[in-house]
Amino acid sequence: MSESTEDPVFQLHRGGKMAVASTVPLTSRDDLSLAYTPGVAKVCEAIAADPAKVDDYTWVGHTVAVVTDGSAVLGLGNIGPRAAMPVMEGKAVLFKQFGGVDAVPICLDTQDIDAIIDTVTALAPSFGGINLEDISAPRCFEIEQRLDEALPIPVFHDDQHGTAIVVLAALRNAATLLDRKLADLRVVVSGAGAAGVAVTKMLVAGGVNPADVLVVDSRGIIHAGRDDLSPVKAEMAALTNPRGVSGGITQALAGADVLVGVSGGSIPEEAVAGMAPGAIVFALANPTPEVHPDVASRHAALVATGRSDFPNQINNVLAFPGVFRGALDARATRITDGMKVAAADAIAGVVADVLQADAFVPSPLDPRVAPAVAAAVAEAARRDGVARG
Amino acid sequence: MSESTEDPVFQLHRGGKMAVASTVPLTSRDDLSLAYTPGVAKVCEAIAADPAKVDDYTWVGHTVAVVTDGSAVLGLGNIGPRAAMPVMEGKAVLFKQFGGVDAVPICLDTQDIDAIIDTVTALAPSFGGINLEDISAPRCFEIEQRLDEALPIPVFHDDQHGTAIVVLAALRNAATLLDRKLADLRVVVSGAGAAGVAVTKMLVAGGVNPADVLVVDSRGIIHAGRDDLSPVKAEMAALTNPRGVSGGITQALAGADVLVGVSGGSIPEEAVAGMAPGAIVFALANPTPEVHPDVASRHAALVATGRSDFPNQINNVLAFPGVFRGALDARATRITDGMKVAAADAIAGVVADVLQADAFVPSPLDPRVAPAVAAAVAEAARRDGVARG
Repeated sequence: MSESTEDPVFQLHRGGKMAVASTVPLTSRDDLSLAYTPGVAKVCEAIAADPAKVDDYTWVGHTVAVVTDGSAVLGLGNIGPRAAMPVMEGKAVLFKQFGGVDAVPICLDTQDIDAIIDTVTALAPSFGGINLEDISAPRCFEIEQRLDEALPIPVFHDDQHGTAIVVLAALRNAATLLDRKLADLRVVVSGAGAAGVAVTKMLVAGGVNPADVLVVDSRGIIHAGRDDLSPVKAEMAALTNPRGVSGGITQALAGADVLVGVSGGSIPEEAVAGMAPGAIVFALANPTPEVHPDVASRHAALVATGRSDFPNQINNVLAFPGVFRGALDARATRITDGMKVAAADAIAGVVADVLQADAFVPSPLDPRVAPAVAAAVAEAARRDGVARG
Repeated sequence: MSESTEDPVFQLHRGGKMAVASTVPLTSRDDLSLAYTPGVAKVCEAIAADPAKVDDYTWVGHTVAVVTDGSAVLGLGNIGPRAAMPVMEGKAVLFKQFGGVDAVPICLDTQDIDAIIDTVTALAPSFGGINLEDISAPRCFEIEQRLDEALPIPVFHDDQHGTAIVVLAALRNAATLLDRKLADLRVVVSGAGAAGVAVTKMLVAGGVNPADVLVVDSRGIIHAGRDDLSPVKAEMAALTNPRGVSGGITQALAGADVLVGVSGGSIPEEAVAGMAPGAIVFALANPTPEVHPDVASRHAALVATGRSDFPNQINNVLAFPGVFRGALDARATRITDGMKVAAADAIAGVVADVLQADAFVPSPLDPRVAPAVAAAVAEAARRDGVARG
């Protein structure tokens, strides 16, 4: 099939998915002398005297860079910066559509950690925030942490925190439906990559007892006795599993209340069958969930996936547009755990009054979500003392 | 005066001058699955298999980065990246308005030559071209040259070549009006910064005899006998002034046919009075021309300035939108001298049939200019063997 003439995906993508637009008139000499020389010089001088005014008088205050090195794109892996561009453009237009945030896709021609940090630091004055995207683990942890420390603007690795925020939101509503409390749930996180680590931390920040969490990687349950742990996995071992449980996913799930699958692997039905009665299964791998929702439903009370063709889609678009809209509105210098928990609570809150087993997560198209998230995130930024405006 | 409430310049600039827009629908689940996951994966795979397709299926093929380090902004000097942003945004919206080119302002938080080159190289896959802007001399020469060699996309320092192209266009028409040939004109270029060096090379590329050119810097006429020359000025000494004329601007202008002022300094009336009969004076410093056009007119047959409130404005906006539109249309890998000369000829050609002493340069708002420049530049790219499309 000719990709350009037959397939609606290629037809849609011809010429890309976005454009820049002027928001000021540029049709007369007077227009030019206001928007460009000589008028613009006054604005430059005002910002030179007070650099914070760049947020008032340029687009920087409402603009985010969507930055990738193309090392972990969707399920496609390390396809490099050019092949990553369609995803980053898609992300950028979702930022605009749902959050009113102007976003610019930046695909980097380097996968060296120091070079990525230097590059993003150099271009940071041009943006009000940095959304890191599709950067492979464990490199993504160091890159995000060092940029967060170095830059005076929010840095947010969506594959970690976007997923984690929506998982927490979904778990809040799932627990409410089942009349359970987060603090009483035994949780298994299958996968210790970017999403698994962030989900674990977010659930703990949201009220899950870390002593009741097990994280499972491809070699089994993470515990302090393992000698093959990366720094981030060692952190997981220190945070969770105080009794040092070992074994595989079947041992982990035995009697557990919640499974969050963010591994991309496959989990056998027998393992899911061993969960406690009234279990909650989030099988988020895309396009193939770790356990098919029809299978999961035989053993679990509530099921969510990452797919749009099953109920309860855990979709990052519920989080990132509102998170950045709120952070930019508050002129936040960073994104705190409090802001992320506030975002999760806001997402959950949109459907809290009408919870159903097949609808405890809002639709990604629900227009109420981003404004609710933005307001909650901005308020949390002020509460956490990271707001400048 | 309160900058925010009283001044129309600040009113216009509140919130900046540009935005990002989606060019695809994003309102249904089907829309999302075409523009983002899962549909987008096919496009990623097609580009991974053939990276040149990034120009077909993303916005890269029609997008330019406007990059500065804030070291030489307008006449304001080294005001840094944030204060430079209003100018870069202005440039970006002019790119769109006149050339239909999507442009993204990138203001860098470094003024180190190697760091600038590394940063621009790293982000280059995200753009179809790089417009360098307001980077101080002599750093701008090395930065442009090394990026031009390193990158597979056009790199263009507008302060050099944009000015030079429009000067050549204006001189073509001025010579025609006076029934002179470029090869017979004695030319003085006052100023040996970014614009002066580029103007000198462009005029020679366009037909001026380098033996009839003198370049003057703040210490006088540049000649091979001077021991204070930077590498770029030594290049000027080798290219021009074979007889080793020395002295100041008055000596340089004695009997000269053309003065191109790009120095920002002041040139005394007596010096202009010493030019040959029927002289041509381009006094381009902004906002204060090197010699006031009323004064120049006493001694010269034709006068142009950089200001919009006098006739014959030499404005870069006549060049850069069409130059990049043409380069992108041809998928040029670089911008050759032939493409620059073609741009100049196209600008001149727009008004060639209706030349008048007070209108031998097209208006910066003339909608015929950018399409004419784009067509000529694309054709020259193909002729020069740098076109990929």
